[in-house]
Amino acid sequence: MPYTPTDYAPYDFANRRHIGPSEAEMAEMLATLGVSSLDELIAQAVPQGIRQAEPLDFGPAKSEQRALATMRDVSKKNQVLVSMLGQGYHGTVTPPVIQRNIFENPAWYTAYTPYQPEISQGRLEALLNFQTMVADLTALDVANASLLDEATAAAEAMALAQRSSKSKSTTFFVDHHCHAQVIDVVKTRAEPLGWTIQVGNPFTDLNAQEVFGALFQYPGTYGDCHDFTDVITALHEAKALAVMSADLMALTMLKAPGEMGADIAIGNTQRFGVPLGAGGPHAAYMACTDKLKRSLPGRLVGVSIDSHGHRAYRLTLQTREQHIRREKATSNVCTAQALLAVMASMYAVFHGPEGLRAIAQKIHLKATDLAAGLEDAGYTIDQDSFFDTFTVEVGHMQGLIIRAALAEGINLRAVGADHIGITLDEKITRANIEAVWRAFGIARTATYAAPYRLPEALIRTSDYLTHPVFHMNRAEAEMTRYIRRLADRDLALDRAMIPLGSCTMKLNATAEMMPVTWPEFSDIHPFAPMDQQQGYAELVADLSAKLCDVTGYDAISMQPNSGAQGEYAGLLSIRRYHIANGDAGRDICLIPTSAHGTNPASAQMVGYKVVPVAVAENGDIDLEDFRAKAEKYSDTLAACMITYPSTHGVFEETVREVCDITHEFGGQVYIDGANMNAMVGIARPGDVGGDVSHLNLHKTFCIPHGGGGPGMGPIGVKAHLEPHLPGHVAQGTSGAVSAAPWGSPSLLPISWGYILMMGGEGLTQATKVAILNANYIAKRLEGAYDILYSNKNGRIAHECIVDTRPLKDSAHVSVDDVAKRLIDSGFHAPTMSWPVAGTLMVEPTESEPKAELDRFIAAMLSIRAEARDIEEGRLDPENNPLRNAPHTMEDLVSDWDRPYSRQQGCFPPGAFRVDKYWAPVNRVDNVYGDRNVVCSCPPMEDYQEAAE
Amino acid sequence: MPYTPTDYAPYDFANRRHIGPSEAEMAEMLATLGVSSLDELIAQAVPQGIRQAEPLDFGPAKSEQRALATMRDVSKKNQVLVSMLGQGYHGTVTPPVIQRNIFENPAWYTAYTPYQPEISQGRLEALLNFQTMVADLTALDVANASLLDEATAAAEAMALAQRSSKSKSTTFFVDHHCHAQVIDVVKTRAEPLGWTIQVGNPFTDLNAQEVFGALFQYPGTYGDCHDFTDVITALHEAKALAVMSADLMALTMLKAPGEMGADIAIGNTQRFGVPLGAGGPHAAYMACTDKLKRSLPGRLVGVSIDSHGHRAYRLTLQTREQHIRREKATSNVCTAQALLAVMASMYAVFHGPEGLRAIAQKIHLKATDLAAGLEDAGYTIDQDSFFDTFTVEVGHMQGLIIRAALAEGINLRAVGADHIGITLDEKITRANIEAVWRAFGIARTATYAAPYRLPEALIRTSDYLTHPVFHMNRAEAEMTRYIRRLADRDLALDRAMIPLGSCTMKLNATAEMMPVTWPEFSDIHPFAPMDQQQGYAELVADLSAKLCDVTGYDAISMQPNSGAQGEYAGLLSIRRYHIANGDAGRDICLIPTSAHGTNPASAQMVGYKVVPVAVAENGDIDLEDFRAKAEKYSDTLAACMITYPSTHGVFEETVREVCDITHEFGGQVYIDGANMNAMVGIARPGDVGGDVSHLNLHKTFCIPHGGGGPGMGPIGVKAHLEPHLPGHVAQGTSGAVSAAPWGSPSLLPISWGYILMMGGEGLTQATKVAILNANYIAKRLEGAYDILYSNKNGRIAHECIVDTRPLKDSAHVSVDDVAKRLIDSGFHAPTMSWPVAGTLMVEPTESEPKAELDRFIAAMLSIRAEARDIEEGRLDPENNPLRNAPHTMEDLVSDWDRPYSRQQGCFPPGAFRVDKYWAPVNRVDNVYGDRNVVCSCPPMEDYQEAAE
Repeated sequence: MPYTPTDYAPYDFANRRHIGPSEAEMAEMLATLGVSSLDELIAQAVPQGIRQAEPLDFGPAKSEQRALATMRDVSKKNQVLVSMLGQGYHGTVTPPVIQRNIFENPAWYTAYTPYQPEISQGRLEALLNFQTMVADLTALDVANASLLDEATAAAEAMALAQRSSKSKSTTFFVDHHCHAQVIDVVKTRAEPLGWTIQVGNPFTDLNAQEVFGALFQYPGTYGDCHDFTDVITALHEAKALAVMSADLMALTMLKAPGEMGADIAIGNTQRFGVPLGAGGPHAAYMACTDKLKRSLPGRLVGVSIDSHGHRAYRLTLQTREQHIRREKATSNVCTAQALLAVMASMYAVFHGPEGLRAIAQKIHLKATDLAAGLEDAGYTIDQDSFFDTFTVEVGHMQGLIIRAALAEGINLRAVGADHIGITLDEKITRANIEAVWRAFGIARTATYAAPYRLPEALIRTSDYLTHPVFHMNRAEAEMTRYIRRLADRDLALDRAMIPLGSCTMKLNATAEMMPVTWPEFSDIHPFAPMDQQQGYAELVADLSAKLCDVTGYDAISMQPNSGAQGEYAGLLSIRRYHIANGDAGRDICLIPTSAHGTNPASAQMVGYKVVPVAVAENGDIDLEDFRAKAEKYSDTLAACMITYPSTHGVFEETVREVCDITHEFGGQVYIDGANMNAMVGIARPGDVGGDVSHLNLHKTFCIPHGGGGPGMGPIGVKAHLEPHLPGHVAQGTSGAVSAAPWGSPSLLPISWGYILMMGGEGLTQATKVAILNANYIAKRLEGAYDILYSNKNGRIAHECIVDTRPLKDSAHVSVDDVAKRLIDSGFHAPTMSWPVAGTLMVEPTESEPKAELDRFIAAMLSIRAEARDIEEGRLDPENNPLRNAPHTMEDLVSDWDRPYSRQQGCFPPGAFRVDKYWAPVNRVDNVYGDRNVVCSCPPMEDYQEAAE
Repeated sequence: MPYTPTDYAPYDFANRRHIGPSEAEMAEMLATLGVSSLDELIAQAVPQGIRQAEPLDFGPAKSEQRALATMRDVSKKNQVLVSMLGQGYHGTVTPPVIQRNIFENPAWYTAYTPYQPEISQGRLEALLNFQTMVADLTALDVANASLLDEATAAAEAMALAQRSSKSKSTTFFVDHHCHAQVIDVVKTRAEPLGWTIQVGNPFTDLNAQEVFGALFQYPGTYGDCHDFTDVITALHEAKALAVMSADLMALTMLKAPGEMGADIAIGNTQRFGVPLGAGGPHAAYMACTDKLKRSLPGRLVGVSIDSHGHRAYRLTLQTREQHIRREKATSNVCTAQALLAVMASMYAVFHGPEGLRAIAQKIHLKATDLAAGLEDAGYTIDQDSFFDTFTVEVGHMQGLIIRAALAEGINLRAVGADHIGITLDEKITRANIEAVWRAFGIARTATYAAPYRLPEALIRTSDYLTHPVFHMNRAEAEMTRYIRRLADRDLALDRAMIPLGSCTMKLNATAEMMPVTWPEFSDIHPFAPMDQQQGYAELVADLSAKLCDVTGYDAISMQPNSGAQGEYAGLLSIRRYHIANGDAGRDICLIPTSAHGTNPASAQMVGYKVVPVAVAENGDIDLEDFRAKAEKYSDTLAACMITYPSTHGVFEETVREVCDITHEFGGQVYIDGANMNAMVGIARPGDVGGDVSHLNLHKTFCIPHGGGGPGMGPIGVKAHLEPHLPGHVAQGTSGAVSAAPWGSPSLLPISWGYILMMGGEGLTQATKVAILNANYIAKRLEGAYDILYSNKNGRIAHECIVDTRPLKDSAHVSVDDVAKRLIDSGFHAPTMSWPVAGTLMVEPTESEPKAELDRFIAAMLSIRAEARDIEEGRLDPENNPLRNAPHTMEDLVSDWDRPYSRQQGCFPPGAFRVDKYWAPVNRVDNVYGDRNVVCSCPPMEDYQEAAE
């Protein structure tokens, strides 16, 4: 018999899970490209000089079952205890209907950031619900749609306060009752900008005249609930701003930050149904007064109208953001935590205000009961009043009690040398409380009958979540349908290719996603003792080693929880390195004008001056200009930031030279890992001259985009930078860039699983096929469109820039028209107007089979043909399918007085017939939305869609 | 503070998970009904005389988290070993993409049986793929879309052979190498019908002249692979039929049944990616030659056209089925295993023929390797050739080796006293094989390098799965999208109420669904030693006790895996009871003419003669006729079968009298549990006079319908019938009705979870709200429609019959028109023309909130108004929205030459505007489909929907 088991290993072989085209399809595509093999194409696309010496080799790829079994074994090395450690992280019940239908549903988790509002109305509504929830609970005017974590949100709030305050001070006051990791990250972020952090007691140490702002924790990390109204009044009198880091669950019972006069509120929404995950991902929030809204960092969903005047949601005030402001940006926030914000908002939608209040009340009663039991036994509680957290004086018994609690399966928090902190949450049971008492030597039965211990003056009396959306989805049947309706409005990877250049929307394989929700990964408190996190430790160590192999670096930090955070952390390492070398004066950062917008934004955040470098006609960095500027700033050159392959989608021949020049003049090389999907297995940034890179795990390494986050941006560094990586208070070090030591570790099984199941060979094949798919599209579009930039062999890397500008001149067809017309064919648009205005950047990734590429090509060719029809007078220049795209059912059902048919309008080539995706709104009016900023849920009529 | 923790328990309180309307909504609804409280309504709807004495009390309801924790604890009492036990059950890898996107996706699992083809095109396509897969692999002409299990499929095949054969014999031959449980169920089913089962060696014991048919297992239960061609030829010469029970995985390598001349093939498709689940649910299959197709039992998907001539799928040849044929039915198959058939078909779609063959080859090589190791060590393998199973002679070492294997975590099969059976599957690893060798005292390394051991003459040479659908979804990205596209074509509970009278489409709560896929429940072999199944044993015991409480019975059998199987098992118990009492002559079964079609079908299957009983004008059983017939047949009265509340949706006052009369004349009372949703907590069938009832766990107890199965029909009996419940060979008893001892046990966590989380109070409240919701709809529709049947207080039970017949006369509007027009409003039609032709039976269940009821009412009222417009000449009698329903996008996009607007056609009241559900096809032509029966995948064009 001819068969051997390796002849055809079914879908477990990497080539048929992650790799779209079959062997036969690849052969056709290679023929179209005029090459005889994949390797021949790669040889033409990738300069020999940058190819890595040895192939990636992690041993044979694991089958799905074996990878899952490995993951299961490793997960069991985490110990899931009941953590009463607080500090911004709490046990929470994820409602199963939300877990299954959002967290585990590709319709939600494979969506992209809602830059194309017409195909994002579902998640925009969910995020608007999030904003409404936050604004209501904080009693502030406007809330954004999530930040990365509480600590970075605090740092962003500090920056917002600094740029909004009229105070001349450069000092920012931080409540000594802030969580330790928050204080540390705020310090990290202040230092390069020259701001002083004063940590102290707001009621005794704060001189409002001497600060531009102050941050208070509410309730405090030890549980105290204070009214900050007077302190805030004093700050305002001194033109300083007040920031409160507030627990949304507590705010269902406590006077809100807005009611105390706070300008800004921030915090974590994790306890609204998002698993602990050893620190993330969770959505942080920021809310502010109306007058600060145009300075708010992060994504902001607003209400606008579409071309028919119907209400439509969109991201608003995008001009605040780094991708527009670049080196003038005040924040590099790009990826947010959309999926987690959606979950938190759905938790509020499902429970409603009564439900949330009941949960909070129950948590509070658990806390008062537990405290009463301790007091009855003679212990002293340090706080007169508290919500869910208090500390107990225990003298020299601290270690003993903590160990006794551990034996009961409970983590308590050591506070100082002789106190213990206890935080209650909705998952804590009577049995847990009784176990804590036993650890304190008390035999007692929990009753939840102790009186409230909230300060009378802080009891909340104002309403919240009054909008109908928080009242109409209480039965699970309705909740299921609401989630489904929103999902159906959006176009995600589960329905079509999303050919977003640079964003790498590849398959998030189900087997990779499954471990994320295993309790052993999801129910770990980030500050649980390390011996309970050995599974994560092993995973992080092995994944780091493999990422070092992939990149050619010597060490990895998993802490940055977005690509932009990775850039920041990487530049910070460079900065610290220069300072350690006595080179504190080095503060110039060379960045090509074609760079990602986050690059200059990140550079300015570490206090670097951005010096733009020109780009040559062929898209490469202008070497002469680069050398000239490096030389000019030779005394102060800190770093260059380059992207490889370039943001023009080409493997530049000169990358080593750029690195050498930088080193020659004393700078460090930051290679942006955004395009790593074109490099894995064939070239290593560490080999070509990089000192540090971040890796977007949510691009190349299969973490789903989640509709705009989570992300994960670990950095790889050469050995000389390793001592300068971020530390963390939980590890006894400092200089953190994120709230949790490993950033968002519950995502890491995804990337690890991907690498285990692909093996070195599979990863390399993926890279090659990504390059093949991109070159195939480029080739097929040739003639109809110019493809900007290619190398000397006429090849591109993993993405290409399709020039749609000529259509503007010839047919008044804008790049927007093309993008929206693609929606009619059932596609998310490619990246628009970046890095070249008026063009589209297309990246298919390796996941797409030929049929899907051909469908996209058909759509693009048809668009060109329609433009030709305009050029040649067969279509009306103003009233044509391109200008009117996307077409909706609303168009179809209404009177059709257009000079083209319904058929042509709604079913262009590429569109499925029966399974067509319909945009729920017509083209969204951006100008209207920015002029009329409404960032919370609109009135009820929109929700009562059913014709009565 | 006024709060106590019971004031408002958020969604964990049964009233807001499973119970749709809020308290406020209920108050409005009660006001509409003119009653002041829910209890007042119940007092009006339910006769005092049948109310149960004591409220249900299972202690307090558990929260979701606590119920899940309980379930987790119980699940851990099952031990997941590697089972190499075979006998029709095999370890299998469920591809994660299928698990997440089908098995765990409410769009698939909450769908109803595809009787309404226009809203079922997705699952119909998936089931057509299943039929094509089975027909291809068996090399037969036609395959149905699943039966309940291999054993009942064998029994159905026997019955098919009996009615199709021209032989006069009443003997059916069964291969002694059939699985023991198959033989037992075949015997159970043959006995009441007077057929003799001859078990023997087909090559030595079978005299074709003396049988009407024969069943062969292929490969045999001990692994032998024989060519049955000659035996089959002999059977055919004697006008007898040949049935082969064949393993589809083996058929990828072995000559197919059709190639040996078999008339019928049956088997289990479990190993195509469906978890073991301790016996089920899995989909069995049946395939046959073309000439037998009109006698095939079970669901059959066929290809037809819609009103525009476009291809559309539908269930075909429904006239074969029990709901039409009633007492003339030859099978009571109703619920099939649609969800599991869909999974198995998707396994084939994903792997394709090459993948399946590779999996089979690898299994075979594992088996040959393992056997070679044993032979090299001196053991004797009994089979010369085999696929995945063989037996080894071990003499007195049997127990020792089996225990040694157990110690390695492996279950081996004891065969006789001195042999061991070993079956390999796709999950078996090299380590497992080496462990088996160790248990046999052999130290050896697995290589999978032994030669093939298939008989040369049986090597398959013919093609299979050549249709493109088995070749185009190999990359996970495409597979995900294919699954999503199909799901999107269908309307299930995750998008809208499905108000199907009698079918009880209620919420399947996510928390109830989650445990089903835990490995501790899903990875258990049904014949694993009982000490490995203690979790299931505990669950079954507790659930049985609670169901006894609910029903007033004394014992429960979980074995029947559908409602119809429950009827059969219940009647069988009655039959056995009569025989045990020396009353073998009792064979008359009284059944009201309003009964479910399965009732008479089941009765005839136990050899009973059905005597129909008249129904009075008011819908109640005609007591006089009942008494007269009972009296007439007093010597031969075996049983009556009644439904309570009646199939007319009313609590009859006379139910006790009916039971008394039956008992008076020596009969037993079978109370059909189909309407148990109206009784739980308020009345018990065992109290009102029932001797036996089945419970449709897939109705009242929340098991999802899965698009037409799985189902679960356990029976409750009074103590005197308990000795006559089904046994099982695995328990050393006989008389089984299903292949596995507990039927489909992996479904049981759903019903158990429901009961745990509702508690007695919650269950009772659900019943009351189901009655409220139904009465509310009836009240609101009054005036527009007559509601047939209500009790003396004008109240109905949990469902109502809406009379649409007058519209036929006044406006030529058929009940079909109404049903299809409801699709335009986004609803699945209510039950059509049953129990009264030309009417609709509406059952909203307790899960639906008022808003959804109102949406349905709006749609129904609008339909009445449209009919009025026809009556009064405002709408064309032939060309109107009712006649043309459902309206599709195809209608919208085409020229619209209708005398009503697109708006009116497509967006009637009730329809969502943005989130509208669109039927993918226009009205399906039933006549065309039955005239042109095509039951496998149509040509490729249908799949290439994308306009090129």
